[in-house]
Amino acid sequence: MRTATDWQETPPVVLVIAGNDPSGGAGVVADIQALTALGAHPAVVVTCLTVQDTRNAYSVNPVDAGLVEAQACAVLEDLPVAAIKIGLLGTVEIGRAVARLIGEVGDMPVVLDPVLIAAGGAALAEEALVDVLLEDLLPRATVLTPNAQEIRRLAPGNADHAERAGALIARGCRYVLVKGGDEEEAEVHNLLFDAGGEVKHFTWMRLPHRYHGSGCTLASGIAALLAHGNNPRAAVAGAQRFTFEALRHAFRPGGGQHIPRRLPSIGSDHG
Amino acid sequence: MRTATDWQETPPVVLVIAGNDPSGGAGVVADIQALTALGAHPAVVVTCLTVQDTRNAYSVNPVDAGLVEAQACAVLEDLPVAAIKIGLLGTVEIGRAVARLIGEVGDMPVVLDPVLIAAGGAALAEEALVDVLLEDLLPRATVLTPNAQEIRRLAPGNADHAERAGALIARGCRYVLVKGGDEEEAEVHNLLFDAGGEVKHFTWMRLPHRYHGSGCTLASGIAALLAHGNNPRAAVAGAQRFTFEALRHAFRPGGGQHIPRRLPSIGSDHG
Repeated sequence: MRTATDWQETPPVVLVIAGNDPSGGAGVVADIQALTALGAHPAVVVTCLTVQDTRNAYSVNPVDAGLVEAQACAVLEDLPVAAIKIGLLGTVEIGRAVARLIGEVGDMPVVLDPVLIAAGGAALAEEALVDVLLEDLLPRATVLTPNAQEIRRLAPGNADHAERAGALIARGCRYVLVKGGDEEEAEVHNLLFDAGGEVKHFTWMRLPHRYHGSGCTLASGIAALLAHGNNPRAAVAGAQRFTFEALRHAFRPGGGQHIPRRLPSIGSDHG
Repeated sequence: MRTATDWQETPPVVLVIAGNDPSGGAGVVADIQALTALGAHPAVVVTCLTVQDTRNAYSVNPVDAGLVEAQACAVLEDLPVAAIKIGLLGTVEIGRAVARLIGEVGDMPVVLDPVLIAAGGAALAEEALVDVLLEDLLPRATVLTPNAQEIRRLAPGNADHAERAGALIARGCRYVLVKGGDEEEAEVHNLLFDAGGEVKHFTWMRLPHRYHGSGCTLASGIAALLAHGNNPRAAVAGAQRFTFEALRHAFRPGGGQHIPRRLPSIGSDHG
């Protein structure tokens, strides 16, 4: 697995397009920590400002779509972006603006995390935005990372995850990673699909708590590893290992869910 | 110097109130990386979305002051905040909302970075916001971190930094750290003042490049070390050492300034 381990090396840039969670559990804080931990440089375009704590999301306040575009253009014109990670979009207009942007950047890995529901259960996307995800963004995604609930909404009327993933891959995305962390099963099953069907079945020990920001951590981890030049299968496997370690060392600072520990501190060397 | 070095320890929470820089050089990305590196958990309230690259800032788009307040209240009601770091505010209304908030949190360390000018030269605060800084925020600041240009604007009509710092401390802040990094001197001189005058003169080797986000890195470093329970003098000294190392290992991803490397990556352990 290739990552930047050398302090002399210039980290590859990952463009993050996502929302802020002020608790620091999910959203761009999670993205920034995961990308930095895996040796990538985060360039961050904020789409929405949520009001949120470690229990649930209370409001989603979208940024003007033109401002989302202006932030992203400033990054793309100045920095050598090596991969893009898309999270919470917020509105149809933002979704369309992001689709236009990624339509213009050429062949570049795109990780699309279809954020539809907050960890605490709040709905984060209206039906029209789901359509934009399916029609405008999916065709450019290298890896789509829905949880089980999200893929049921994205591909309804199918018998199982294999059929659902097949329906999404038929729209143009290359890989679908279905995450089982929120399902009621003794172990966590994450399933990776490509156009040929199931590529790999990952089984993880179920950890004892509920976690705020595990999906953002995983999607940004995949984007970091793609930006380093790894192939999608290796990136998906490596990012899961990274996320599992972050969850295993999670802490609970507030009254709600645990927050993944995405980075060890430097400690007293610089203190 | 106390920092969290143990993966089992719950990091102290630092509330960051600042703007986003999409290049990831300055703003909340810098804050998140510095706080995380020094073992604190960042809870991030976004005040402004800037359009910015590694060369300069092109626009500052303030968030509604009520939304700034709602984000901060969500954090303060859920998480045990141990210190506050204030950066770019953007408008008088946001400045006043933040002043109200920190007036209500009781005795808690506050690091106030009076962001008035972008690294590339763009003005980031109008005169009325300077008044809010002086009148409403300074009285609650534990450490104020102006650069030489900023302290000349905050305390005009004084003969030297000692007089300027004295004038600001008379308004109620406890310590003023005047940063000399942008001055035309062979070495960098940072001067720490308290009510009794100059406490400490720090001399640093001048590094060869221009850096995007050094001030955010330093202010968040101080906040992290205060949140760990260090006294202000120790926090100011430790954060300077941390920042110097981040600048010494900086990289240049784009066409403009270097970006401080605030964290080593975890590397192949998790890859």
